[in-house]
Amino acid sequence: MRLKLLKEASQRVANTVRRTSLEFSSTLSAQSGHPIHLKLENLQVTGSFKIRGALNKVAALCEEKKLKGIIAASAGNHAQGVAFSAQRHGIPAIIVMPENAPISKISATKSYGAQVVLAGETVDDSFVKANELKEEYGYEYIHPFDDELIIAGQGTIGLEIYDQLPNVGTVVVPIGGGGLISGVAIALKSKNKKIRVIGVEATNAASMYQSLNIGSKTTLRHVKTIADGIAVKSPGDLTFAYCQRYVDEIVTVTEEEIASAILYGLERKKTVLEGAGAVPLAALLHGKLSLNGPTALVLSGGNIDVNRIALLIERGLVKNNRRMKLRVILPDRPGALSEITKVIAELRGNILEISHNRQAPNVLIDSAEVSLMLEIRDKEHGNSIITTLCELGYETKMVDY
Amino acid sequence: MRLKLLKEASQRVANTVRRTSLEFSSTLSAQSGHPIHLKLENLQVTGSFKIRGALNKVAALCEEKKLKGIIAASAGNHAQGVAFSAQRHGIPAIIVMPENAPISKISATKSYGAQVVLAGETVDDSFVKANELKEEYGYEYIHPFDDELIIAGQGTIGLEIYDQLPNVGTVVVPIGGGGLISGVAIALKSKNKKIRVIGVEATNAASMYQSLNIGSKTTLRHVKTIADGIAVKSPGDLTFAYCQRYVDEIVTVTEEEIASAILYGLERKKTVLEGAGAVPLAALLHGKLSLNGPTALVLSGGNIDVNRIALLIERGLVKNNRRMKLRVILPDRPGALSEITKVIAELRGNILEISHNRQAPNVLIDSAEVSLMLEIRDKEHGNSIITTLCELGYETKMVDY
Repeated sequence: MRLKLLKEASQRVANTVRRTSLEFSSTLSAQSGHPIHLKLENLQVTGSFKIRGALNKVAALCEEKKLKGIIAASAGNHAQGVAFSAQRHGIPAIIVMPENAPISKISATKSYGAQVVLAGETVDDSFVKANELKEEYGYEYIHPFDDELIIAGQGTIGLEIYDQLPNVGTVVVPIGGGGLISGVAIALKSKNKKIRVIGVEATNAASMYQSLNIGSKTTLRHVKTIADGIAVKSPGDLTFAYCQRYVDEIVTVTEEEIASAILYGLERKKTVLEGAGAVPLAALLHGKLSLNGPTALVLSGGNIDVNRIALLIERGLVKNNRRMKLRVILPDRPGALSEITKVIAELRGNILEISHNRQAPNVLIDSAEVSLMLEIRDKEHGNSIITTLCELGYETKMVDY
Repeated sequence: MRLKLLKEASQRVANTVRRTSLEFSSTLSAQSGHPIHLKLENLQVTGSFKIRGALNKVAALCEEKKLKGIIAASAGNHAQGVAFSAQRHGIPAIIVMPENAPISKISATKSYGAQVVLAGETVDDSFVKANELKEEYGYEYIHPFDDELIIAGQGTIGLEIYDQLPNVGTVVVPIGGGGLISGVAIALKSKNKKIRVIGVEATNAASMYQSLNIGSKTTLRHVKTIADGIAVKSPGDLTFAYCQRYVDEIVTVTEEEIASAILYGLERKKTVLEGAGAVPLAALLHGKLSLNGPTALVLSGGNIDVNRIALLIERGLVKNNRRMKLRVILPDRPGALSEITKVIAELRGNILEISHNRQAPNVLIDSAEVSLMLEIRDKEHGNSIITTLCELGYETKMVDY
């Protein structure tokens, strides 16, 4: 790709996309031993970087194609990026989404003035439907990643990073279809060939990682990850070629690592990341990265369903030994419940939930079972509570959550 | 207060505090009809603005006082601000916190190297203890708001806003003890007397509002709000006088309004706000503000317990008609449960939780009760589901949550 395409993209998106801040993190820098900067694309218009590529593509369409309108298939950020871009240019947009797409994403897409068509179970089904509609009505199809103009649009992030941090040594980027990392890598390598570009995929959707390993495009049968924005079965032709040429390394992160990174974002950085946007942070926090000099993590999006946030918080706290669920058997007599809650209070465990059940299975007829959800400091703290209860004669077990 | 004090404060804190961004919001601007900018102090070092005042105060101490060390009483952001400032200046700090302070806040304060003393049930008790320790050991007591140097430190936010948005017409600021708004108002009025400064208090902790109304400092008996950072029973002497002189108006927001603003921050702005930090947004979203020109909302902090976030999400979604809890009575026969879940799916309600109880009270012996938590689009959508179930002969009621 010629640098010209990137520069044109920068000009086309300049008035509409936000130049997101690149924020230095002293805590992450101290932990990792390298200066760490966070490129907060979750604070981008529409909540993700996707607007950059979509807007560049739409702006470059000829008038005739603009009149006919555009179509895309997506359950997520691409849908919003395309809808927003069409609205900006005053052209009609049809977005095909799976029937079970989250209500919040459907509403957001409609709020940008697009017509939403619900079709099929998965995005693959939506893609088939979008293709039918394209053939029938002559709409211009907007691919989510395998398109030079989309890639150039996403690449504007690379130009911004170089501008904000000229001595950048390493840039870490999520990979779904590969459009974002292709654009960012082309932009950065055109400035300085020595800048390392590391891609991060979810272990459960590592199609680019596997494709590069065997040297040809591979299609995964199943992809299922909380990082739904990068749950892509196969790289594109263009993006595969660009990644082969420009990406230095790909690492993968597990579901638990992604969840703990989302939680870290909320608690420590006061920022909302979706799974896909959190993978670079997950890779850093879990020691997957070999860094070189000042480093920028591209946190690509923040469109996570709030229902999922609530769930992640609960699971994340249990995993990080900040919560513990206990099952305690106690004699069904006055004072027993009072004693165990007193002991827990003295040990500074905070009782978040409690339920008392005299009819639990596997409990003796004159006993009762108490289930407790406790807030604790750490694993040691949790263990000290269990030990004390056992020493007082209460059968106590930690329960998986 | 002389402008000199503010300028000195700016210099003292410049190397340590973050110049937080003032972010334009197109959605909020369109909704309110005025250009709305968000001053993101939740992204400040230590997660709140409190570091500004504390650092200014500590930096200004004479060497003798620095050697003896400092002491403060706080369950929240002031604790972290003081601890961090002491660490920066290499001086000892003692923070007295209530015994039931959240584990996360105790850990954060300790992580900045302070010695934490747990004493009493409330911050008032902690204050008594801090005073005893001050008398006994000669520590310098750092007041959370009623101190010229603290006020000047917080005022640096006002100078930044003026610098970032020179044509600012209105600035909206949370009020707890009044230190933040005093500093911000002094700074802005010194630049341009016509800038309106509006304070926001929680209805449940409106001590400044009441004090200004009756013309003298008032002490509330109870203050209980999810905006715990501004749950203050009485203004300070200095801050009361400054607010009388410089603050144009005070408005109040309810607990529900604060909760919905926190949720708005998470979902729409991808940013984490604590209750106190969200009150200006709550006032805007609920039509409490009479604005004048370009407006800046000071979102003062993001230190909210993640346990509370999970809870707020659930309550907020119910309040905003995005979730609905139903109780359906159905004949205890095969197929009944299947029928109602099918109907709900056809109407595009998403079942989040379901429990089926044959032994519920007030239910006929041959019937069963099903409790359902549904994700819905809006109130109308919820009503259509209830109507349809009733038409099919199922006794259906919406349940408060």
